[in-house]
Amino acid sequence: MASDGGATEGEPKGGKELEESVADRVASLVESCRLLQEAASSHSSRWQHETDALSKQAVTHVNTLKKLQGDVNSASEKDEINQQTAEKLEEELYRARTMLYDGDVASLLPAKANGFFLRMLLGPANVRATRKDGRYKVKEEYNAYRDRTAVMFLAFPVILLVLKNRIWNGCFPALPVQVYQAWLLFFYTSLALRENILRVNGSDIRPWWVYHHYCAMVMALVSLTWGIQGHPSCIRKQQGVRLFLGWAVMQGVAMLLQNRYQRQRLYTRIALGKAGRMDVVWGETAGVKGQLWVLYPLLFILQGFQFFIGILLLKTAVLEDESEWQMVVCGLLLILMAVGNFVNTVATLITKAKIKSKMKKQGKQVLQRMTSKKIA
Amino acid sequence: MASDGGATEGEPKGGKELEESVADRVASLVESCRLLQEAASSHSSRWQHETDALSKQAVTHVNTLKKLQGDVNSASEKDEINQQTAEKLEEELYRARTMLYDGDVASLLPAKANGFFLRMLLGPANVRATRKDGRYKVKEEYNAYRDRTAVMFLAFPVILLVLKNRIWNGCFPALPVQVYQAWLLFFYTSLALRENILRVNGSDIRPWWVYHHYCAMVMALVSLTWGIQGHPSCIRKQQGVRLFLGWAVMQGVAMLLQNRYQRQRLYTRIALGKAGRMDVVWGETAGVKGQLWVLYPLLFILQGFQFFIGILLLKTAVLEDESEWQMVVCGLLLILMAVGNFVNTVATLITKAKIKSKMKKQGKQVLQRMTSKKIA
Repeated sequence: MASDGGATEGEPKGGKELEESVADRVASLVESCRLLQEAASSHSSRWQHETDALSKQAVTHVNTLKKLQGDVNSASEKDEINQQTAEKLEEELYRARTMLYDGDVASLLPAKANGFFLRMLLGPANVRATRKDGRYKVKEEYNAYRDRTAVMFLAFPVILLVLKNRIWNGCFPALPVQVYQAWLLFFYTSLALRENILRVNGSDIRPWWVYHHYCAMVMALVSLTWGIQGHPSCIRKQQGVRLFLGWAVMQGVAMLLQNRYQRQRLYTRIALGKAGRMDVVWGETAGVKGQLWVLYPLLFILQGFQFFIGILLLKTAVLEDESEWQMVVCGLLLILMAVGNFVNTVATLITKAKIKSKMKKQGKQVLQRMTSKKIA
Repeated sequence: MASDGGATEGEPKGGKELEESVADRVASLVESCRLLQEAASSHSSRWQHETDALSKQAVTHVNTLKKLQGDVNSASEKDEINQQTAEKLEEELYRARTMLYDGDVASLLPAKANGFFLRMLLGPANVRATRKDGRYKVKEEYNAYRDRTAVMFLAFPVILLVLKNRIWNGCFPALPVQVYQAWLLFFYTSLALRENILRVNGSDIRPWWVYHHYCAMVMALVSLTWGIQGHPSCIRKQQGVRLFLGWAVMQGVAMLLQNRYQRQRLYTRIALGKAGRMDVVWGETAGVKGQLWVLYPLLFILQGFQFFIGILLLKTAVLEDESEWQMVVCGLLLILMAVGNFVNTVATLITKAKIKSKMKKQGKQVLQRMTSKKIA
């Protein structure tokens, strides 16, 4: 079909000549596309081949690392090796771990499959960042998102409470509260999606904090169906809402504090080579001064308050004649979240105390040596 | 730190010897990790380099393709080239298009950025399948998801309507309807997420069908806040719900028919080389016999019915004393969706008619030639 006539492109031509020129260009495009397709195909299969080979090595090294970590720990516990040597070896193993989990090698390790939540909402779509930058971008954006939304999380209930006292004469109209509840549903869904994507990308976020967001999603959904108007006395009917908003204000403050402390801590840990940059700061708890004496008491008060609101809702549901199922469900969810949060915070504190006592026992040489090394 | 002592691994050793053996293994692991990291790094940057070069070519070819397509069209319209030649050239251009958009080359073309909806819920996470299989898996799963959910979409309102007449004495209790509304919210959110991911992966789904799902999401959310109980007469209060459920039954049947017809059509188009496998069947409309005389009338009846329910809700909101804002919003959304659906269905029909008349004019040689070529 392609003619061989050497017509110069671009010149005005008539009939036969134009036909041949266009036909030439089309034929040459088809040929280029064919060549490109071949190149892309071989590029892709070659890449897959190489990736598979490197992946195999990466998996082997991860297994060796795990085995050696166990050997060093057990030998160190049984006093079969010198404490100082054990520390040195652990330091070396940290280096190996960082090289495996925190760079180009990380994307070679087999991907975690999408969890149930992602499969339900996104299907089997690939959400894994292939390039290192992409993965950190997801993480950085997650932190930035938490910062932005913590402000809204605080501002929303504050505005509602202020308007209630100033404009609404002590009674919430339904719509603004429902808008807030819809925002909470969106917010927790988005957080749960992002955290699931972080997990697929190798983050070690504690599973509870994700489950916690599922509970919060369900609670937001249920509370949307819960009419807060129509009773003779809005004061009584809306007690739960008022308490919840009060709790949300405290939670907002706690989120802002947590974000601040834990980002500091994350940077410290990264500097020390202790954490990959994919580790998530959410609900994690260690290391920065002041945190223990401000954040922890606040967290425990919040958990207590959350528990109290849950009990109160259940009590009201039992005592009142016209009790609504939403009260029972929200009450149970609040209690579940309060207990789960408490258990997980305590667990983190215990881990932290253990590390501290170990460090005291060993002296602070390790930390000092690591710090000076990384800085140097 | 690594000792050179040739202690055999695995043998029981004490003190110094064990220490040296473990230290050896640790040192060798660190060294292997370092080498792997280097290999992964060079692999990754080499890959990026090659990909960039191929991407550049792909973009150039796409631009050439677009230009040539324009040239052939205008020359053909001005009768500057022979009709038969024009058809041949278009056929060739189809081949080029298929090679560019429907294979390994497709993943080299610059990715569409995540749309607003994806950015809000997922952030800047990568949702692009890199490998050809991955992309088709997303597409196939989307079709399978539509099949599965169409059955639920049909079954849910049927069950509610049957239970209303058999068990609930003509009045819906709130909870089952709210569960249905929550499911709709989840369903439309999931569809909108999946369709956005398909778009990022190069699907040509009509934008309206995605916007349509945003409207449906908002409507499901709003209807959740809409108490359907508490009026003196549930018959009047629940008229909107009954009509909506009736519409949903018809919509469920239409979805099943659409899925069937359009999948057939998609396979025909793929066989003809006319459509990439990433094209979405949703709301698209062409080609299979029987479709015109069953599906289209049903679609138009559905759109009319949807419009009617919308008007009815608005009318009730205006006439009733205790009108609720949910009525107005749901009414407006239903009218918007009905009009949008109608316009888009008619637009597709017009496109189809144009293609048909063009084909009639040119005779059916092209299609026949293409078919015989692909089959041969």
